Amino acid sequence: MARIKTIGILTSGGDAPGMNAAIRAVTRAGIFNGFTIKAIYRGFDGLISGHVKPFTTENVSGIIGQGGTILKTARSKAFMTEEGRQKAYDNLIKEGIDALIVIGGNGSLTGAMTFAKEYDFCCIGLPGTIDNDLYGTDNTIGYDTTLNTIMECVDRIRDTAQSHERIFFIEVMGRDAGFLAQNSAIASGAEAAIIPEDSTDVDQLSRFMERGIRKSKKSCIVIVSESPKCGAMYYSERVKNEFPNFDVRVTILGHLQRGGRPSARDRIIASRMGVGAVEALIQGQRNIMVGVRNNEVVYVPLSEAIRSDKPFDMKLIKVLDELSI
Amino acid sequence: MARIKTIGILTSGGDAPGMNAAIRAVTRAGIFNGFTIKAIYRGFDGLISGHVKPFTTENVSGIIGQGGTILKTARSKAFMTEEGRQKAYDNLIKEGIDALIVIGGNGSLTGAMTFAKEYDFCCIGLPGTIDNDLYGTDNTIGYDTTLNTIMECVDRIRDTAQSHERIFFIEVMGRDAGFLAQNSAIASGAEAAIIPEDSTDVDQLSRFMERGIRKSKKSCIVIVSESPKCGAMYYSERVKNEFPNFDVRVTILGHLQRGGRPSARDRIIASRMGVGAVEALIQGQRNIMVGVRNNEVVYVPLSEAIRSDKPFDMKLIKVLDELSI
Amino acid sequence: MARIKTIGILTSGGDAPGMNAAIRAVTRAGIFNGFTIKAIYRGFDGLISGHVKPFTTENVSGIIGQGGTILKTARSKAFMTEEGRQKAYDNLIKEGIDALIVIGGNGSLTGAMTFAKEYDFCCIGLPGTIDNDLYGTDNTIGYDTTLNTIMECVDRIRDTAQSHERIFFIEVMGRDAGFLAQNSAIASGAEAAIIPEDSTDVDQLSRFMERGIRKSKKSCIVIVSESPKCGAMYYSERVKNEFPNFDVRVTILGHLQRGGRPSARDRIIASRMGVGAVEALIQGQRNIMVGVRNNEVVYVPLSEAIRSDKPFDMKLIKVLDELSI
Amino acid sequence: MARIKTIGILTSGGDAPGMNAAIRAVTRAGIFNGFTIKAIYRGFDGLISGHVKPFTTENVSGIIGQGGTILKTARSKAFMTEEGRQKAYDNLIKEGIDALIVIGGNGSLTGAMTFAKEYDFCCIGLPGTIDNDLYGTDNTIGYDTTLNTIMECVDRIRDTAQSHERIFFIEVMGRDAGFLAQNSAIASGAEAAIIPEDSTDVDQLSRFMERGIRKSKKSCIVIVSESPKCGAMYYSERVKNEFPNFDVRVTILGHLQRGGRPSARDRIIASRMGVGAVEALIQGQRNIMVGVRNNEVVYVPLSEAIRSDKPFDMKLIKVLDELSI
Repeated sequence: MARIKTIGILTSGGDAPGMNAAIRAVTRAGIFNGFTIKAIYRGFDGLISGHVKPFTTENVSGIIGQGGTILKTARSKAFMTEEGRQKAYDNLIKEGIDALIVIGGNGSLTGAMTFAKEYDFCCIGLPGTIDNDLYGTDNTIGYDTTLNTIMECVDRIRDTAQSHERIFFIEVMGRDAGFLAQNSAIASGAEAAIIPEDSTDVDQLSRFMERGIRKSKKSCIVIVSESPKCGAMYYSERVKNEFPNFDVRVTILGHLQRGGRPSARDRIIASRMGVGAVEALIQGQRNIMVGVRNNEVVYVPLSEAIRSDKPFDMKLIKVLDELSI
Repeated sequence: MARIKTIGILTSGGDAPGMNAAIRAVTRAGIFNGFTIKAIYRGFDGLISGHVKPFTTENVSGIIGQGGTILKTARSKAFMTEEGRQKAYDNLIKEGIDALIVIGGNGSLTGAMTFAKEYDFCCIGLPGTIDNDLYGTDNTIGYDTTLNTIMECVDRIRDTAQSHERIFFIEVMGRDAGFLAQNSAIASGAEAAIIPEDSTDVDQLSRFMERGIRKSKKSCIVIVSESPKCGAMYYSERVKNEFPNFDVRVTILGHLQRGGRPSARDRIIASRMGVGAVEALIQGQRNIMVGVRNNEVVYVPLSEAIRSDKPFDMKLIKVLDELSI
Repeated sequence: MARIKTIGILTSGGDAPGMNAAIRAVTRAGIFNGFTIKAIYRGFDGLISGHVKPFTTENVSGIIGQGGTILKTARSKAFMTEEGRQKAYDNLIKEGIDALIVIGGNGSLTGAMTFAKEYDFCCIGLPGTIDNDLYGTDNTIGYDTTLNTIMECVDRIRDTAQSHERIFFIEVMGRDAGFLAQNSAIASGAEAAIIPEDSTDVDQLSRFMERGIRKSKKSCIVIVSESPKCGAMYYSERVKNEFPNFDVRVTILGHLQRGGRPSARDRIIASRMGVGAVEALIQGQRNIMVGVRNNEVVYVPLSEAIRSDKPFDMKLIKVLDELSI
Repeated sequence: MARIKTIGILTSGGDAPGMNAAIRAVTRAGIFNGFTIKAIYRGFDGLISGHVKPFTTENVSGIIGQGGTILKTARSKAFMTEEGRQKAYDNLIKEGIDALIVIGGNGSLTGAMTFAKEYDFCCIGLPGTIDNDLYGTDNTIGYDTTLNTIMECVDRIRDTAQSHERIFFIEVMGRDAGFLAQNSAIASGAEAAIIPEDSTDVDQLSRFMERGIRKSKKSCIVIVSESPKCGAMYYSERVKNEFPNFDVRVTILGHLQRGGRPSARDRIIASRMGVGAVEALIQGQRNIMVGVRNNEVVYVPLSEAIRSDKPFDMKLIKVLDELSI
């Protein structure tokens, strides 16, 4: 295996706050250690179309605090085809890129792994997703910022809920993972959370509502993980039917959860992971995801990071139950 | 007219950030000037049901920075009936309240004016509404905070809009008044605003879109005033039909626009208006709204504050047009 | 007078949040109206050294929300000399600049006026300073953001003041003008403000302290305008001597008051003033400052904006007195 | 050992954001599990003077988002004496308190441990300090919020540093521990950090400065841990002497680092630790500190939490070095 000289970097999938801090860290640590850095725009699509640009430290100056990703991002359909991946490979060779660093979520890292195997190409993944659903790292880049954004929104909505004595169902991101919903419920002092991992159905919810009423709580906030079938709107309708004299409202937080200036934690883990990715290349690692576990940078095989389910700590359900009395 | 000794205070209608600062100011300035303060809970409903509590400076300690209203609020249907208002009057007499300070929007001040005439009762209004649609004051209490909240949300969504090169329609409050939409569009650098005061229809929007495309702007944010017929969802559908290759998304900000810690400006005008309301009573004023115009506290007859339309500065449309090229 | 074709723009003096929004507005409104825009770096120093760069709309893309100034700024000593101003003039001619827009505070606009007279050159001023001390505009660009920044800092310090039952003297900017101190004291619910415009000396302060103690307030926050002789440190020492059993602390907010993302209000007035400056040039105005008064864009002769004292509303002292009981 | 029925709770030492979330969690989880809760005011001083109040869930309603501590806090000198501790013990017995939960830093937990041994009294510690210097927990309550507060301040100051091309030395808390300085430097993209754990002396600093100058970085931010001898002021003076043509400034962040609304992370760990403390009592644990390690609630003997040095991750120095090129 020849020594790596040129590193390609891209962001893929949904944007997450802290991606820019990771791009900055890879670029600077790469240059510090003698590598050439080439930035690829618009995720795998840009790799296929050849949208590549050499990066110096100047290109990443002042971006550590910016939300989104300066490299743009996309969910590439073309990269799911053999032709797409062949073009991507050709462009990597043409650009003289020896290793590819991919910042993204589950889908993006799966794409990177498939490609790495197919073309025997050195790929390193960085966990960039607000959902926190990647195995092998305590937190993904973006999760902490989004948690704070949701909490601040709920804090605001609580002002209105209490002033008007209303019940609010607030829908947050996390289709398959309740990390955001459960933890933002704890952080914001919400009365309940409805998450995919829990068996809470509307009957449990109703019991909860009744318990709340008996205790004469007059306003109430329930955080609901987005879901095609039973999101905030669904629960709100059922409660309206069963408790017609309550004033029930719904807020779907939507896309504002994704953006914003990254929190200190997200900037720090993104910086450490970026430096760790360059170090991994120096060590000869390949096809791993860089994580931070127990406050230490770790390397996890891409296959493991993707395949395994990240365990949800069921004790958090007990925490919320005891605190929402 | 006997000298006023006891002041009643209530908040009514939609909650607005800064209402607590106004409650605090009335209470403290009232006590400073020798009045007794009685707080009425849940707006006019609480007046009708007799939910009244004497207030000291302690009751308003530490509330200047809290969103919502510690007095709770409601849109009272009972107060629209003669029986309701009679009960309200009886309770005012029973509690020994000589003057009533009402913090709320158009509907609440209209209710106060009706009541004041019917029972020859001294009422003072404070403009508390995020919509900024009350005549006679440059800003209403809550408007500046909500403007900042919307701007911060749009800043966040722009991160995603730019990262994914999408078009976003963002719906904000202000059913009958475009102050929030137009000014938040200017503040957030949005590409367009759709407001009730303007004749912008979807064809103009389309022209704007085409102009944007020619100039190769790839992401775009349009702020839309909420509307039963043609809100953000309506425009998004029309654009999707006419520009099928764009990635169009909608976010409805909803109730999170109402709450939150009040801005410096809202705390200051609320404080000045609260002090001004007490001074108005000392001067023997009645049935006026306290406003701040040209940085001076002013007294406007309630009838004028309510009846007149607050003029929308059409030059702001030109400002946004020139800045969104 | 020949028609103006090319506009030069610079920022000068202390940086203020919203300067970038003004630069953006001048650039875009200028290009919209057919002008060529040339940006001058580092204030008058850059004009003297010829650091000039043509600007397109791209150059100001995404800057509306950034603090500081992308054009850099300086307090130029060279521009105070005749030689300096001659070089500046020569560079303006060389660059084909017909009119100069200067964003800055009192000193910067004085420099602009001197230069305008000396060389019969068309200068337009925009009030960019956190101090709010320019006559002819209700608010200067940056003032509202700084007010909010100070308020948030005081909110934080109050948490500690109350938890430990301490007295805090907090020093804020505004050497010659108490706008920031007085208004941030009202906004943050501080117990007192010490400002240059008021005669409050330490004896009045002591009386206030005693009054506070009698009322058994155990924590207390006093906002002090910076001053070479009697800033926060001076008052803290005197109080420590006279009330030895109090726990007295000092915090000097310093430079963090200047920066930060501009508030909605600052972005809006900066945008309106920038558009207004271009319109002024179209109208043939010269040697004026663009202000916003009573929510309307106005043009004030530079000589008037600079020479007159901006009046401090002494009623604000009464407001704070009544609210801090 | 008799079953515990009544839990006393107090906060001690410097206030930290999240202490209220911990008080709320102990109170609610305690009541949920059948305990009586008694709140003790002003730390150990209040225990000695008998300032104790029974708490219901109402007492902790709405406090999860408030900075500081509603129980007040103090650094008790009286508790360091035998007489003080005897009075404290007498009051515990008088109030029927069977177990004491102490939220505080190193000094407070040391006091708790001494007392627990002396009187064979069941004490549980919760790590409440912004310094993050307690062994046995990944983060202390308050650390994450303070990190974000510092980062936001540095973000603001950078606006000015870049606009004026200045060098700033910013002093942050952490007399004996560089966690805050090093991590806030990484998070804010600062050029260097000076921390007690590192051997960086001013000569290294000078070398860094020269390196920075060669690379033509014109603004520069250095974060310095507070220190009686060599804080920000000391370094600033030395650099001024050696690089007289630089514009060097100092900002000492001071007390505003302590307060403020707690971050999501601090609210979550405080909530989990509070629930964990009650569970520890149910399990019969005593004289332990509750921590969160690897995202799990853990119990650490008080003696261990206090005596051991929390290791500083020296790799973070390398991270900052590589990123500040």
